[in-house]
Amino acid sequence: MATDKKTLLESIRSPRDMDAFSEQQLNTLCAEIRERIIQTVSHTGGHLASNLGVVELTVALHKTMRCPDDQIVWDVGHQCYAHKLLTGRYERFAGLRQKGGLSGFPNPKESAYDAFVAGHSSTAVSAACGMARANTLAGNGHHTVAVLGDGALTGGMAYEGLNNAGHSNDKLIVILNDNRMSIGRNVGFVARHLSNLRSRSNYVRFKRGLTKFLMAVPLIGKPLYRLVLRIKLNAKYAMYDSSTMFEDMGFYYFGPINGHDIGDLTQALATAKDIGRPVLLHVETQKGKGYLHAENDPSRFHGLGAFDIDTGEGSSSGDSFSAAFGRELTRLAAEDKRLFAITAAMRDGTGLKGFSEKYPDRFADVGIAEEHAVTFASGLSCCGVLPVFAVYSTFLQRCYDQLLNDTAIADNHIVLGIDRAGLVPADGTTHQGLFDTAFLQTIPHVTLLAPSSYDDLALCLTRAIYRDKGIAALRYPRGGERPLPSDFHAEDTPFTLYDKPNARRLLVTYGTLLSQAMAAQAAVDEPIDVLKLTQIIPIPQEAVILAKQYDEVIFIEEGMEQGGIGEKFGWLLRRGGYTGQYTLRGITGFMPTCTVPEGLQMAGLDTDSIVALLRGEQTAIATENDYE
Amino acid sequence: MATDKKTLLESIRSPRDMDAFSEQQLNTLCAEIRERIIQTVSHTGGHLASNLGVVELTVALHKTMRCPDDQIVWDVGHQCYAHKLLTGRYERFAGLRQKGGLSGFPNPKESAYDAFVAGHSSTAVSAACGMARANTLAGNGHHTVAVLGDGALTGGMAYEGLNNAGHSNDKLIVILNDNRMSIGRNVGFVARHLSNLRSRSNYVRFKRGLTKFLMAVPLIGKPLYRLVLRIKLNAKYAMYDSSTMFEDMGFYYFGPINGHDIGDLTQALATAKDIGRPVLLHVETQKGKGYLHAENDPSRFHGLGAFDIDTGEGSSSGDSFSAAFGRELTRLAAEDKRLFAITAAMRDGTGLKGFSEKYPDRFADVGIAEEHAVTFASGLSCCGVLPVFAVYSTFLQRCYDQLLNDTAIADNHIVLGIDRAGLVPADGTTHQGLFDTAFLQTIPHVTLLAPSSYDDLALCLTRAIYRDKGIAALRYPRGGERPLPSDFHAEDTPFTLYDKPNARRLLVTYGTLLSQAMAAQAAVDEPIDVLKLTQIIPIPQEAVILAKQYDEVIFIEEGMEQGGIGEKFGWLLRRGGYTGQYTLRGITGFMPTCTVPEGLQMAGLDTDSIVALLRGEQTAIATENDYE
Repeated sequence: MATDKKTLLESIRSPRDMDAFSEQQLNTLCAEIRERIIQTVSHTGGHLASNLGVVELTVALHKTMRCPDDQIVWDVGHQCYAHKLLTGRYERFAGLRQKGGLSGFPNPKESAYDAFVAGHSSTAVSAACGMARANTLAGNGHHTVAVLGDGALTGGMAYEGLNNAGHSNDKLIVILNDNRMSIGRNVGFVARHLSNLRSRSNYVRFKRGLTKFLMAVPLIGKPLYRLVLRIKLNAKYAMYDSSTMFEDMGFYYFGPINGHDIGDLTQALATAKDIGRPVLLHVETQKGKGYLHAENDPSRFHGLGAFDIDTGEGSSSGDSFSAAFGRELTRLAAEDKRLFAITAAMRDGTGLKGFSEKYPDRFADVGIAEEHAVTFASGLSCCGVLPVFAVYSTFLQRCYDQLLNDTAIADNHIVLGIDRAGLVPADGTTHQGLFDTAFLQTIPHVTLLAPSSYDDLALCLTRAIYRDKGIAALRYPRGGERPLPSDFHAEDTPFTLYDKPNARRLLVTYGTLLSQAMAAQAAVDEPIDVLKLTQIIPIPQEAVILAKQYDEVIFIEEGMEQGGIGEKFGWLLRRGGYTGQYTLRGITGFMPTCTVPEGLQMAGLDTDSIVALLRGEQTAIATENDYE
Repeated sequence: MATDKKTLLESIRSPRDMDAFSEQQLNTLCAEIRERIIQTVSHTGGHLASNLGVVELTVALHKTMRCPDDQIVWDVGHQCYAHKLLTGRYERFAGLRQKGGLSGFPNPKESAYDAFVAGHSSTAVSAACGMARANTLAGNGHHTVAVLGDGALTGGMAYEGLNNAGHSNDKLIVILNDNRMSIGRNVGFVARHLSNLRSRSNYVRFKRGLTKFLMAVPLIGKPLYRLVLRIKLNAKYAMYDSSTMFEDMGFYYFGPINGHDIGDLTQALATAKDIGRPVLLHVETQKGKGYLHAENDPSRFHGLGAFDIDTGEGSSSGDSFSAAFGRELTRLAAEDKRLFAITAAMRDGTGLKGFSEKYPDRFADVGIAEEHAVTFASGLSCCGVLPVFAVYSTFLQRCYDQLLNDTAIADNHIVLGIDRAGLVPADGTTHQGLFDTAFLQTIPHVTLLAPSSYDDLALCLTRAIYRDKGIAALRYPRGGERPLPSDFHAEDTPFTLYDKPNARRLLVTYGTLLSQAMAAQAAVDEPIDVLKLTQIIPIPQEAVILAKQYDEVIFIEEGMEQGGIGEKFGWLLRRGGYTGQYTLRGITGFMPTCTVPEGLQMAGLDTDSIVALLRGEQTAIATENDYE
């Protein structure tokens, strides 16, 4: 029993501390977990609705499984808050999503209980399938669990995983956490199939009394129970004329189960463990469960900043590049019926809400299906449509082959609005937008633009749609504009020089890092010119010729150094015969959870560090290493 | 009627020339097409079994559709031979898969009838979905058809496409060309679901008489027919307790239909057109149909070189890097139970047949699911297994995010055997293995090795498995070793220098291009050293230091120049303070169908061109452009 001073949750150092808890205590524990999550996220921001939905499921999982020997893979990883609270991280939880604190996603480097990173959607079954196979080969009897949201089933990779996992003999339990989000989005198949499944009878509950009875029989109880279980499952096959998709995939299918009933959940999980081969457990949960504001508006409480617990109100986030992008695209669409906007389950995040309401026929939310989005756009462009796919930089990583093979080879014209490019606050390593500059450089027929302000974005968007060919992309960060000199104005040119009399050194950059570059230019006594590249792929030849005139060129970028724009600029300078000094500073490794100012400082890209670099002073920054 | 001199096939300049053909004539035409395909492929090599399987389907499609207004997207594209013969390319067909000849895949630049490239699997529904949507927006009434093999359904992207397409109002017809190849491979779900569908009654045939009758009724016939059709489809829903997966996806499902009965096919396609919204037509075909050798062994006749029509025998392909890889991995697996081999539907092509037979428990063919393969491998590696994924370079493009986000971030150790790296003969632009060097450079924690001989491959494989960390990859070409000096022997070092007295110039290369480099070294009078890089990512620092001692460094690579190894080498030289001459020659654009010698010549990488480069002579090669 908990003392007056200590809550049940505080008393838990490892999941095994729950072993003696009664069902009533487990329910109390769930309430405490909810309170702790709401309290913390109201300060730190984070993913709220999904985490409140899986509290009972997480408790039941850790009561039934023996982690870390047994493994749980969360898909998407951001529903791991209760899991973190139950696995020895209660006290560090206040530092959620902060530099040096707990990641908002599972992280094997943070805890042995975090089996896999799983930052991007629809990957858990594949990862869990590998772990389960390894356990089978080792014969260690461990179980592997993948917890999959129904939204994750809109991603094709989930099918690849399920298709491969079901017919194995591995001890794999896939939990389909069905919170009907795919219905909200109305993305066809998954919603309909799950709806069919939900309409079936309460098949699973019925079995509990029988199990208790049989398990009580000495010696023959367990084998007999297994026999009965198999007969029942076969009977179920016979009962329904056609099997469920998951049964076709080779899984034993259980469900649907009430995902907020600890008793049902632990019973179902224990049964699934007994089966000893792939099981799919269909669990129904409610997003935002236990916090009225989130129950009523789960979308708004999916991922959000700090908020007031009583009112549910957050601070207004103000204007942003995403909003500016959506505004400008909507404006252009009024004049041009060929424009078509695409998002992969990020309509609001990419600023396309207004567009989708105004032009529903020229808008598609394809679900978490980035690969489809690109090839769909390429298909549209074959027939005279002007498709614009707004996508977070980190998720564009999933489309490399679709960009290369399905779009660039045929030279089809599609536009990419690459949102969350550069440092992305709070979500950590898996969601940084630092690779697009590097991998897009390796694809022929790509133009990449990097606006520094909203006006600049508008010019870039128009140019990408109407003047560029092939894959025309613009990249812009999460959040709003950074300070720029009051006389700054956007120019519709591939690059702009901000010069000073008698400057012999040139500072080159692109995107919103222009803010730090211009502040540094103002801060040093020596006259230094600043070159803003707006077109970064391909690098304009004239910009290279211009740079060659300086004694020293310093390139700074908020993107990966390896294979990035700065290396390319250095290479082009070299090829052009430049023999002066060339200094490059970019991001050189995986960047952990941080705010943008913190990330810039770690990489030596904040104004002070740039000033120190220009002055030739040493600063302690990591090079060619991860920043963790 | 065809004259004695001209076959029916010869008389066809466009699909409309078939309009007056009787069903009997269409069957004759099919026989002529088969003969032409067998004759041609016996000389040129190519994809035989799949093309023989879709002859009637292709004829029925072009009889029913009005291409190029209506569009057909082939998935995978290599089943397009009959399509090419019927769309004005009969005479050029002898040049199939040869430089300057017809591509073995659809190519919109080759013909307006080729709607989409579709070189990689499982992309057609997404592309067709885009085209169909564009047609809906334009209101032009055109139909779009995607022809999908059942193997393509093992790729997750197909589900993303189907899930998005089904619930639209677009005139989209998805033809599932079911030749039971997924059964052959025993990749669970798809095989089982299709098997369920096939076991249903001959529902579609039955309708033909009724249709004829109704359509003959003046004025009200067609509306009445449509009404009956809808009632029937609803009745079908009621008849089966649960709907098919495709119906859940929102498609009208027809099938299965005999894919070798022209009458059934044209009737079904006409009906599908009448429905006017997404239809899935399940067609059963036989791979290799009409050529006994291919019917009996469709796998061997899937893709092959020239062969003898009477005996079905091809010339023995001799030893290869793929075989050497499989041999060595099998040898290592005898000593180390932790080794696990993975292929994505390319068991024989990657040399893993022997391994799979000897160690079936430590082998997985995951279907056409490269994304799953990488994350599955990453999961395996979390639990003490040593996974080796053998994959063609071109298909590895599909795994960029799985390598980066699911593997590199956690620093999981997986080994990649990158087969078909470099120039790939005959399959054309979509299958060249030229990008891996560039995109792998942008991923942290990657080691990439480039062996030049079989012995070298064995050393690299051991090193990748046991000494390197993170993602450890080796890349090797299709086919066998290229000539090397008789005293060449593989060394287990990151690089090797082949030096001459008093050399002031250095030729740097990697992989099998070492053959051309050493031949060029021998051919010029001037002493030139050759540096063989075995480790190309990261480039060994000592190799750069060594190169700095020369007056000129010339780098040649059989890979993309943009973002490739040579640019990086040049950048590292520059950063190291090198001020000598640096010359780079790599591949600078999309490379069309060619043999390896032809491709090397086009890129200026054959021995003669390298000799000319070393002598400072001008040669006419394309730069920064595609080679088409």
